[in-house]
Amino acid sequence: MSATVVVDAQDERRVLEDTLVALGAGPAEAADQTLLLLEADLRGRHSHGIQRLPVIVERIRRGLLVPGERLSKSWAAEAFLAVDGAAGFGPHVAMRASDLIAERAARTGIAIAAIRNASHLGMLACYVEALAARGCIGVALTTSEALVHPQGGRQALIGTNPLAIAVPTDDEPFLLDMATGAISMGEILAYLERGAYLPRGRAVDREGHPTTDPAAAMQGAISPFGGGKGYSLGLGIELLVAALSGTALGQDVTGTLDVQHPASKGDVIIAVDVKSARLRPFTVRISDYLRLLRTSERAAGSSGIAVPGDRSRMTRLERLQSGIPLPERVWSQVQRLHAETTEAARTCA
Amino acid sequence: MSATVVVDAQDERRVLEDTLVALGAGPAEAADQTLLLLEADLRGRHSHGIQRLPVIVERIRRGLLVPGERLSKSWAAEAFLAVDGAAGFGPHVAMRASDLIAERAARTGIAIAAIRNASHLGMLACYVEALAARGCIGVALTTSEALVHPQGGRQALIGTNPLAIAVPTDDEPFLLDMATGAISMGEILAYLERGAYLPRGRAVDREGHPTTDPAAAMQGAISPFGGGKGYSLGLGIELLVAALSGTALGQDVTGTLDVQHPASKGDVIIAVDVKSARLRPFTVRISDYLRLLRTSERAAGSSGIAVPGDRSRMTRLERLQSGIPLPERVWSQVQRLHAETTEAARTCA
Repeated sequence: MSATVVVDAQDERRVLEDTLVALGAGPAEAADQTLLLLEADLRGRHSHGIQRLPVIVERIRRGLLVPGERLSKSWAAEAFLAVDGAAGFGPHVAMRASDLIAERAARTGIAIAAIRNASHLGMLACYVEALAARGCIGVALTTSEALVHPQGGRQALIGTNPLAIAVPTDDEPFLLDMATGAISMGEILAYLERGAYLPRGRAVDREGHPTTDPAAAMQGAISPFGGGKGYSLGLGIELLVAALSGTALGQDVTGTLDVQHPASKGDVIIAVDVKSARLRPFTVRISDYLRLLRTSERAAGSSGIAVPGDRSRMTRLERLQSGIPLPERVWSQVQRLHAETTEAARTCA
Repeated sequence: MSATVVVDAQDERRVLEDTLVALGAGPAEAADQTLLLLEADLRGRHSHGIQRLPVIVERIRRGLLVPGERLSKSWAAEAFLAVDGAAGFGPHVAMRASDLIAERAARTGIAIAAIRNASHLGMLACYVEALAARGCIGVALTTSEALVHPQGGRQALIGTNPLAIAVPTDDEPFLLDMATGAISMGEILAYLERGAYLPRGRAVDREGHPTTDPAAAMQGAISPFGGGKGYSLGLGIELLVAALSGTALGQDVTGTLDVQHPASKGDVIIAVDVKSARLRPFTVRISDYLRLLRTSERAAGSSGIAVPGDRSRMTRLERLQSGIPLPERVWSQVQRLHAETTEAARTCA
């Protein structure tokens, strides 16, 4: 294990924003990209946190991620927003799209955005949460590099394609954000680094045998979560996103993890205006039901019943107070990048 | 095992339609309800097939299912159809709603129907398939009796809430239709009847211990498929459907399996018009990708790689040719009901 430092959220925010602005990001682009990375760290989803900054910086330097809010958007139909991100910051493109479809859904009841050519969106929870804050049910889907094998197969041909859903309640929204792979590549790497075995059923080796060896898993493929059903769901997301955004499928998906290729994945966001259903007292009933779930009888040996979103919300509150634990290695690298980029920007100015 | 008879699809259709019409169903209602039951049997989903007819008949006799196409529908917003099924046939209500949102989506790009007060929809595949045939991506969600425990819990508080997605290709559509429970109550009953053990991980007993004993499972609860992720998805469907249709949550959901209660579950159907995305050659690329998946390298010991929808399509074609195997008990009961109802109708006329 490498050493850990505890970083204040405001410090992480400042470092991120300064670095991005120094590299040419507009204020809104920098704010949205920062929000996505910071929120992931606050919620304990470090794979989507500040550790991604070096890849983002390198992609900007190589012209694969182009700051400047050049996105183009058009209403292909009254409730169908087609967005070309023009190689820009995914978080900014997707937040803009979310705003527009929430606004449109207030009139049409439902609206959808299909996004292409935007960089990695990061943790989808943020977009659907923003929609829930505007009184919408939010659904977000995205494709990613092919890392998952089809059920019965052994080749990595399907993305870990995550899905997020938020439903407003009269309290905090219900918030689901999950990948359709049984494990992430980041987690496999973490097991490898600390010399530990994977839990069973998460991955297969090159021959397609289930494996708990992280090195063998990296030569093989990640398994879909939940067997054939998870496979079906992940594949459904792969097709739905590609069909609506005109983006790549399977092994043609590139550019979210690497620093060599354009981002060829796609994103789909849907907003459904709950007010359209004209069921005002409903958010209360949902909150009551969720309370009932949380306090229902536990299984023998269970440590408790959580509603999706509960745990990350608690982690977030804790970390806002007491800081974010980050590997020292990551924080030093980010600080170097920050010094380098802001220095260069000053010199140019 | 009880004896099996092989029934021609046309015979099953006639028996179903005649019985329903004799009980007061209009021609479209009878046709849609028949389609749903017959298609389930053709695809090997007997739990949703003709064996449901006795419950349907009893619900009609008790006034819990009311024939006569009395459904009311209104565009709550331009792309949001609110439907009250007026205790009518779910399949007819949902097919009508699907038609209307497909038509609307051709202009708005996306449209949604939220349905309340309609009887059990049956196999969701049929609705999204109908949408795909009209060039739409179809998504259907429905709630059902609380049979599934929350992750970490042991009480049955969540429905087996199925999800269906169809994506048009230039060939047969991609067709996913899955419940979010790890097993259905019908399957548990079948294991019980033949004195067999359940596969592992499908259910818990009253104390919340995993069990393979079908009798203990019936005293306990069905597990969500795929652990915490499947739980989150099933719960997300529960909330999304209820929030948009104003229908019941958790243990308040009744009337799809019993003959005592009104149908208090809800249904949501979404149509996204693929043409809105203006990506015409795209269906070809999807077909190519699905072919690649099917012919990709198999895992050791794998019997093959199927794309969701493949197997049920094959079963359907076989059964259209060589007939549908049904338990003799079920077929005799249905024939008795047919004789009874058509005789009564003739006497009244």
